[in-house]
Amino acid sequence: MIIVLKNGVTEQEIGSFTEYISKKYNVGVHVSHGKNSTVVGLVGDTSRVDEDSVGAQQIVQSIKRVQEPYKKANRKFHPDNTVITLNNGVKIGDGNVTVIAGPCSVESEEQVIEVAKAVKASGAKILRGGAFKPRTSPYAFQGMGADGLTLLQKAHEATGLPIISEVMSALQLPLFDDVDIIQVGARNMQNFELLKLLGKVNKPIMLKRGLANTIEELLMSAEYIMASGNENVILCERGIRTFETSMRNTLDISAVPMLKRLSHLPVFIDPSHASGITWMVEPLSMAAVAAGADGLIIEVHNNPSAALCDGAQSLTPTQFDSVISNIKKIASAIDKTI
Amino acid sequence: MIIVLKNGVTEQEIGSFTEYISKKYNVGVHVSHGKNSTVVGLVGDTSRVDEDSVGAQQIVQSIKRVQEPYKKANRKFHPDNTVITLNNGVKIGDGNVTVIAGPCSVESEEQVIEVAKAVKASGAKILRGGAFKPRTSPYAFQGMGADGLTLLQKAHEATGLPIISEVMSALQLPLFDDVDIIQVGARNMQNFELLKLLGKVNKPIMLKRGLANTIEELLMSAEYIMASGNENVILCERGIRTFETSMRNTLDISAVPMLKRLSHLPVFIDPSHASGITWMVEPLSMAAVAAGADGLIIEVHNNPSAALCDGAQSLTPTQFDSVISNIKKIASAIDKTI
Amino acid sequence: MIIVLKNGVTEQEIGSFTEYISKKYNVGVHVSHGKNSTVVGLVGDTSRVDEDSVGAQQIVQSIKRVQEPYKKANRKFHPDNTVITLNNGVKIGDGNVTVIAGPCSVESEEQVIEVAKAVKASGAKILRGGAFKPRTSPYAFQGMGADGLTLLQKAHEATGLPIISEVMSALQLPLFDDVDIIQVGARNMQNFELLKLLGKVNKPIMLKRGLANTIEELLMSAEYIMASGNENVILCERGIRTFETSMRNTLDISAVPMLKRLSHLPVFIDPSHASGITWMVEPLSMAAVAAGADGLIIEVHNNPSAALCDGAQSLTPTQFDSVISNIKKIASAIDKTI
Amino acid sequence: MIIVLKNGVTEQEIGSFTEYISKKYNVGVHVSHGKNSTVVGLVGDTSRVDEDSVGAQQIVQSIKRVQEPYKKANRKFHPDNTVITLNNGVKIGDGNVTVIAGPCSVESEEQVIEVAKAVKASGAKILRGGAFKPRTSPYAFQGMGADGLTLLQKAHEATGLPIISEVMSALQLPLFDDVDIIQVGARNMQNFELLKLLGKVNKPIMLKRGLANTIEELLMSAEYIMASGNENVILCERGIRTFETSMRNTLDISAVPMLKRLSHLPVFIDPSHASGITWMVEPLSMAAVAAGADGLIIEVHNNPSAALCDGAQSLTPTQFDSVISNIKKIASAIDKTI
Repeated sequence: MIIVLKNGVTEQEIGSFTEYISKKYNVGVHVSHGKNSTVVGLVGDTSRVDEDSVGAQQIVQSIKRVQEPYKKANRKFHPDNTVITLNNGVKIGDGNVTVIAGPCSVESEEQVIEVAKAVKASGAKILRGGAFKPRTSPYAFQGMGADGLTLLQKAHEATGLPIISEVMSALQLPLFDDVDIIQVGARNMQNFELLKLLGKVNKPIMLKRGLANTIEELLMSAEYIMASGNENVILCERGIRTFETSMRNTLDISAVPMLKRLSHLPVFIDPSHASGITWMVEPLSMAAVAAGADGLIIEVHNNPSAALCDGAQSLTPTQFDSVISNIKKIASAIDKTI
Repeated sequence: MIIVLKNGVTEQEIGSFTEYISKKYNVGVHVSHGKNSTVVGLVGDTSRVDEDSVGAQQIVQSIKRVQEPYKKANRKFHPDNTVITLNNGVKIGDGNVTVIAGPCSVESEEQVIEVAKAVKASGAKILRGGAFKPRTSPYAFQGMGADGLTLLQKAHEATGLPIISEVMSALQLPLFDDVDIIQVGARNMQNFELLKLLGKVNKPIMLKRGLANTIEELLMSAEYIMASGNENVILCERGIRTFETSMRNTLDISAVPMLKRLSHLPVFIDPSHASGITWMVEPLSMAAVAAGADGLIIEVHNNPSAALCDGAQSLTPTQFDSVISNIKKIASAIDKTI
Repeated sequence: MIIVLKNGVTEQEIGSFTEYISKKYNVGVHVSHGKNSTVVGLVGDTSRVDEDSVGAQQIVQSIKRVQEPYKKANRKFHPDNTVITLNNGVKIGDGNVTVIAGPCSVESEEQVIEVAKAVKASGAKILRGGAFKPRTSPYAFQGMGADGLTLLQKAHEATGLPIISEVMSALQLPLFDDVDIIQVGARNMQNFELLKLLGKVNKPIMLKRGLANTIEELLMSAEYIMASGNENVILCERGIRTFETSMRNTLDISAVPMLKRLSHLPVFIDPSHASGITWMVEPLSMAAVAAGADGLIIEVHNNPSAALCDGAQSLTPTQFDSVISNIKKIASAIDKTI
Repeated sequence: MIIVLKNGVTEQEIGSFTEYISKKYNVGVHVSHGKNSTVVGLVGDTSRVDEDSVGAQQIVQSIKRVQEPYKKANRKFHPDNTVITLNNGVKIGDGNVTVIAGPCSVESEEQVIEVAKAVKASGAKILRGGAFKPRTSPYAFQGMGADGLTLLQKAHEATGLPIISEVMSALQLPLFDDVDIIQVGARNMQNFELLKLLGKVNKPIMLKRGLANTIEELLMSAEYIMASGNENVILCERGIRTFETSMRNTLDISAVPMLKRLSHLPVFIDPSHASGITWMVEPLSMAAVAAGADGLIIEVHNNPSAALCDGAQSLTPTQFDSVISNIKKIASAIDKTI
């Protein structure tokens, strides 16, 4: 970390400042006197140095981080990719492309089993399904809750597919025993109390990027989970909020190579939420695989028009089958399998 | 709500569609046949109509809401301003300007009592202080927790000032019995499970706007609390995330007149988080009062350089006193008191 | 276009309004009386209807466009892809992928000829090179100007590659006689006077999307050129401005399928400006081809460290050769050639 | 400027690099060797140092500017406010608030003279009126052109008010002889060729901030004009583009105190374009004055419903009179006059 001091600071001020910083954060300090400004470099593990606090010191003009503020999620300290293996042997992050598919929300036993069978037949390896649904309106369908999780378990029994579902609150966590991967939604990406609890859970966590969160903030939220003890975190880019209005969100495709470079964690793309439009799921999925994504999470519904949420972005099983066959072409071209 | 149907839909399709909509949402339906397109108007209470679900119907081209999707927070149905009266008689939303001030986080008994006395002397009516702190980094100071709330209570006893503090999780709620106003932070604005619980609490809630949430989404989150039973919600604009980098956030000053027009709830501005810069608190506070804000929430610390969080945006008591004297001039010019 | 009138308008007001609209814009009018609101539908060519003007009428509550406001750029009226053929037979938009490459700015005869030969050998079909450079700072290198265009012409003579270069002002246009494609930079996307002049030019125009312009605005700017007489417009997405700071811009990959659906014009991606980072050009190029882009425009420099602009995002010829070989794999997988 | 070098660079590489930088930009160089990284500080006038070029050097990890990249617009080098005096004695930037008002576009002699008389009577000191109009659609009214400028001159003769009007192209400049202040619109803020030409003009320039341009970019564009010889630049914040949809743009009120601190140039606010809504002009104007703006530019039309552009945001003369009387209260409270 590079700290630029204001013009005109005295030697004594510099001495007090560097002593304070060095003791408080247990870092080495290197002072460099320029003609116009004095620069203090911090040496060692600066991830615990609080920029706000240092920046508030009266003699500090500005600060520049040189090291990333995350450690456990940082590829520099863990050069090898994290590979997550689920109970049934499905692997995530092993260099291939893992497809997760299923309905936005679980609506009935028939629905979820029918969709599960269909997506499995097409090539999906994991079943998604919402039981607790974050909805902008209190008057919109809020999900089936615990019953939804029970139906997902039935779909698992019928197909063998591992299950992923979203948790919205610490109070719901005890219900997630039979879920294979717990999802944290975009709106909860910085629900730090929830993240800390998920760090104590012995299951992989899929962490979705918040609508207006930077890549660094996403990695810091992954760090919350990892620092609490759970290192099996899957990152998911699902579109960010911009000024563009023709799609629901703007897919930040560059997040794939950037996250793969900065971190060793698997990176997924959610083309359904990114666009909010059925016909756009295919080209975005193809782009995601070409850009190096480890997986995709796609909404599929047996009857999108009757879906209780997100119908406009759900594929039919037939459409999903077409998407799979097209992304297989891209994956194959770069020596990956779906 | 206006629903534009695709070209070429048949009379039978229109009939099935309108029957379905009218029964599902208990609304009246009015069909209008144009030359190029058929338009369906929904009449009655459309706040429960799910745009996603309707938009997913195959015959629908696009949808336009005419009514706002919120009811309890809507000024149309509650023309008079909501006025909230605290235990000690302090009023919020009565046409004057209420100033809340205090440290970002509670750090010690001495600190919080010293700050409380100072801000009271300058004219603050409510004491703020963070006990649970949402921090981007898991390695940063996370607040004193329950002890922080105890110290706030001591500051209340020493000064008589009512207290506001932030809750981050349902699990923390039982600790907030002595808090006068519960704050929901920007990152939890769409933590819908928490909002529902706060709807059962018999205390005013200050709801801060999320970094990338629209004004309509803020009102929908207020609606969550109100629909669950608690109508004492205070809205707070604290800066949104944009491309501009010279300030921490961009204060959306237009949110003040817009929220006052759309809703009857009190509207506060947080100039400290909006800018993240000490010297900018004063001009932004003056602008907020001029734009019609019902109150301000300002960070004050007796020793900003040593603050455990947000030191760079905290005023000293002396600076705060100057801010108060300047906003009094503006308030007085428009016949309000601080 | 659907116009929702305010509650309580009289029959007489509606009559005057519809007569005014119908005469002013030569469109048909269809009035539909609902219980709560009256809706006026406009029938016919509404692309000339001025939303601002209609929206300012006192009896109007809100407006919803049903048709797109552009006609010549609209795929609805021109279902077939526009294919542009350059003098030497190079085709753009014919279903394959056309690669444009070259230095950010022309710096010397040796440099531009060396780069031209290298990119041609790797598979580029068109040479890019900046003679007039839009720079944020007046103190930065502004390009070689007319001399740069002369050197580009020499590179053309040496390699046979057609040339694309950016025009920044109407006053420079006479110098572009030997340029094969004229580029309009992102900062000039809404320089409407320049667009009108380019509509009179008998050369293809590459129109780059502005940093904060919507897809609809990009198409409206294309419409300016086309409405003035030049229908050979190439659209180029080059990254938009968002809150994310780890890349220079955020590549809006969804713009590719969206533009291809809305318009018949060829769509290019500029991965160099989108990311501003050398190593990210390859994954973004692969994603662009997978998403359906008609071409790429990539910065290549024989010595990026010494480049007078944009060195950090320029590939060496060797790196460019690797990018080409990887995008060939993607293109081949979807039956396209480079 | 602080340049952080990559780990493992050799003494020889550092030597070549510092010699290169020091000669190329005529700056002093100070090398500081830390344990983990070497930091190079540049001393002297670094405004001409090209960050792109330096950042592209292979041994450079990252760069941090310490000085601002603009000089002539920088308050550090010109501590006193720039005060601009027009022919008739009207002053801009003298510590008071100057109000500019008039129609979005000039439509007829009667209209512009009627509006001019009305706004003068209310207290406006300068008349605005568009002759050349930047419109998103080529099919929308493009302004009266040269005739519009003639009518503005007649309004000047009838009222004595100085005139401001927007130029869109170098080719139009010769028509602006009788205009007192030339306006550069938001879409042309980075039309650098136009800015250079305006640097040769002997009239004040009002430079509007682009929709997605940072405060630093605005000052760099002002620097273009000033570096070309014209130091009479007025900065104008008119709303930036964000994700919020309830207003046309988001007024960045913080830009006022930030620009006043960074620069000595006068700062105006355009509340009409910032909001796009008539009723919001008043509270935003009041906020702007409270925040320290040097002036306002407001759209007024004698018959907004019939306005050929921007009717929805134009005030009637009566509404304008009310705005003026309210901002006078705010101005008076902070010892300024309108």
